[in-house]
Amino acid sequence: MTDQPAGSSAGHDSLSALALVCTLTPSPTPSSTELMARHLLGRFEARGVSTSSVRIVDHDVKRGVQVDMGDGDEWPQIREQVLAADILVLATPIWMGHPASVAQQVLERLNADLSETDDAGRPIMYDKVATVAVVGNEDGAHHTIAQMFQGLNDVGFSIPAQGGTYWVGEAMQTVDYKDLGAIPDPVASTHDGLVRNAVHLARLLRGQAYPAE
Amino acid sequence: MTDQPAGSSAGHDSLSALALVCTLTPSPTPSSTELMARHLLGRFEARGVSTSSVRIVDHDVKRGVQVDMGDGDEWPQIREQVLAADILVLATPIWMGHPASVAQQVLERLNADLSETDDAGRPIMYDKVATVAVVGNEDGAHHTIAQMFQGLNDVGFSIPAQGGTYWVGEAMQTVDYKDLGAIPDPVASTHDGLVRNAVHLARLLRGQAYPAE
Amino acid sequence: MTDQPAGSSAGHDSLSALALVCTLTPSPTPSSTELMARHLLGRFEARGVSTSSVRIVDHDVKRGVQVDMGDGDEWPQIREQVLAADILVLATPIWMGHPASVAQQVLERLNADLSETDDAGRPIMYDKVATVAVVGNEDGAHHTIAQMFQGLNDVGFSIPAQGGTYWVGEAMQTVDYKDLGAIPDPVASTHDGLVRNAVHLARLLRGQAYPAE
Amino acid sequence: MTDQPAGSSAGHDSLSALALVCTLTPSPTPSSTELMARHLLGRFEARGVSTSSVRIVDHDVKRGVQVDMGDGDEWPQIREQVLAADILVLATPIWMGHPASVAQQVLERLNADLSETDDAGRPIMYDKVATVAVVGNEDGAHHTIAQMFQGLNDVGFSIPAQGGTYWVGEAMQTVDYKDLGAIPDPVASTHDGLVRNAVHLARLLRGQAYPAE
Repeated sequence: MTDQPAGSSAGHDSLSALALVCTLTPSPTPSSTELMARHLLGRFEARGVSTSSVRIVDHDVKRGVQVDMGDGDEWPQIREQVLAADILVLATPIWMGHPASVAQQVLERLNADLSETDDAGRPIMYDKVATVAVVGNEDGAHHTIAQMFQGLNDVGFSIPAQGGTYWVGEAMQTVDYKDLGAIPDPVASTHDGLVRNAVHLARLLRGQAYPAE
Repeated sequence: MTDQPAGSSAGHDSLSALALVCTLTPSPTPSSTELMARHLLGRFEARGVSTSSVRIVDHDVKRGVQVDMGDGDEWPQIREQVLAADILVLATPIWMGHPASVAQQVLERLNADLSETDDAGRPIMYDKVATVAVVGNEDGAHHTIAQMFQGLNDVGFSIPAQGGTYWVGEAMQTVDYKDLGAIPDPVASTHDGLVRNAVHLARLLRGQAYPAE
Repeated sequence: MTDQPAGSSAGHDSLSALALVCTLTPSPTPSSTELMARHLLGRFEARGVSTSSVRIVDHDVKRGVQVDMGDGDEWPQIREQVLAADILVLATPIWMGHPASVAQQVLERLNADLSETDDAGRPIMYDKVATVAVVGNEDGAHHTIAQMFQGLNDVGFSIPAQGGTYWVGEAMQTVDYKDLGAIPDPVASTHDGLVRNAVHLARLLRGQAYPAE
Repeated sequence: MTDQPAGSSAGHDSLSALALVCTLTPSPTPSSTELMARHLLGRFEARGVSTSSVRIVDHDVKRGVQVDMGDGDEWPQIREQVLAADILVLATPIWMGHPASVAQQVLERLNADLSETDDAGRPIMYDKVATVAVVGNEDGAHHTIAQMFQGLNDVGFSIPAQGGTYWVGEAMQTVDYKDLGAIPDPVASTHDGLVRNAVHLARLLRGQAYPAE
């Protein structure tokens, strides 16, 4: 189920980060969204975090808002990976100025976990950190980050300082992130900060979980 | 392909309205979204407009942003219905405060038509009117209407005065539109106004199309 | 009250367009938002539309949601200009990825007109056309257009096909529209289409108003 | 400058929470937004957090995006309170489905702090926790929370698990939060969780600040 094997042989005490890649295009077609996710996962690995990645459209994720929609639904296995991770990287392209339908579908599937609680009575997604990575030809990144932050936070994820990163071109242009050659400096710096802050926050929450009451 | 047959035997000069119902739930499960679409289509029929409706998840609509994604993709037939209609009713539920993934997918599929033009060189979706209907247990309607208006207008649809309608319950409640018994008065009045204005604007644009230059 | 005198000596039967310029910066500091509004008004004038413009922050517009907040409130005179115009150009910069606070304040002041009706019992803002122009250093245009469309449409404005235009630079860059030198081709083409479609729709609604019932 | 004096005589090591109340209505008119802020501040005090509150429209906060806009601008004093607080409660009403213009103005003023850094070279707003409280007659809370989360996080605030709370009535209704009599149970429970999680996260970040590199 893990599309990308862990990039480091970190011990079992190390933190783990999972990227959910929400491109509309199945593998093996190159994807700017997946590329940005890799740029982040590489930075996580450099800090000793074990990583994995799932390209959602390569799997049969059913429509719906239940934990398991049955009939071959592959969401439950992906959800297990989410539950096992300390840090989530939700990576999505922009279409029509909005989060891709696949990213919204991930939120819909996580919706079921609003009412799932652990042994202490806490929402099951607590103590996890969410970050968001967005790519597009042009415009829509702030809106997409806003939507994903709100949805993921509602489910229980915490958002580290400056937990979103993105690249889009000038208005009405058509360049792709994967064709840029190099990551522009301010974007690379934002990638760095996101990873640094996510690791810090995940370590704190690993050390001291949110209280039940 | 037409899930709901035309509700009136209007002449070929009559206007036509098509509802794209974006519930996550396939037929025949009752759907609040489909019910609100019917409430609007009934009002269109009362004004002599012929109507039809497609419940998107009953069809194999592929992910992507091309007119035809191949491999059994059923979007092209739905697109033909959109092209044949004067008035679009995009009906969607709210999930996590956002438009359903199915509604966003409809925008993604319409995205291809941004670059399609007619014989006069005009975008192919010009002269059509779009309206939006939104249902949810609680909160998210204005945001959903905003997203759909912007996406549909970008493709070429015109928006009539007060072209959105919706119902949601009080914050953090769980009642469904389909269980209300009766449509609340201000909602029924908003339904009425939407239909009246959409018909007026569609007639004007049928009579005088947007100029090419 | 009219900051920019009408640019053409059009007869009283001609259409009129009013730009509400929502920059945060008072005159006479150059403003990208005002510049884009002028680019649109010039195109309206070339089609025989008389134009005027108000830079909102040059006036004492009070906080609130009433038609007249008293105490020197200058909104009532601006509102008279809105009521006299056939076409509204709401021009706003992006800050933090969102519409400027001044644009939101314009919506708040228009909110009072949701319950104002004309002699025929119709909302007082019916038969008017709204368009939206957005500038920013980077990202946020689609979101801003979506928010403005939904708010203005709710008050009663109709939105013509492709009724939004915008310019923003590449992600995390700092160039201003006013420093571009020339309007990029796709942006100029979008300006042209917006104006052409707004004039067409305003003429249709001038000829045949929305019915009361 | 502190509209509401601290509600507890906590020692100087205790955490502090500041509410920025973004109602459009000046004191002393009762405000649902301020009431919800008080409901949260009371819960913070019960956990030993010292609190204060600023009703923004009672102060002369100038338009703009600089730290100090001069000419009697009262933002710099409010900003000092933000810098002194561990936890921010941004409380805003909904107008036209959007955050109030006053809330957007607060983001615009915080925008200057995107480029302000501390002695370690870190953004000056790091190690602070942001929460959002939203009230309205109907609809718009999720969107408002999304916009505020994204803006505040971009400036450097961290968002605790389930860091937003809200109340709105049923669609197209006109009841106010301040007229409810009692806080509905699910809303009270959301208030409780927000406060519990914000205090936990603020303590963790007080103990271990985000690293500079």
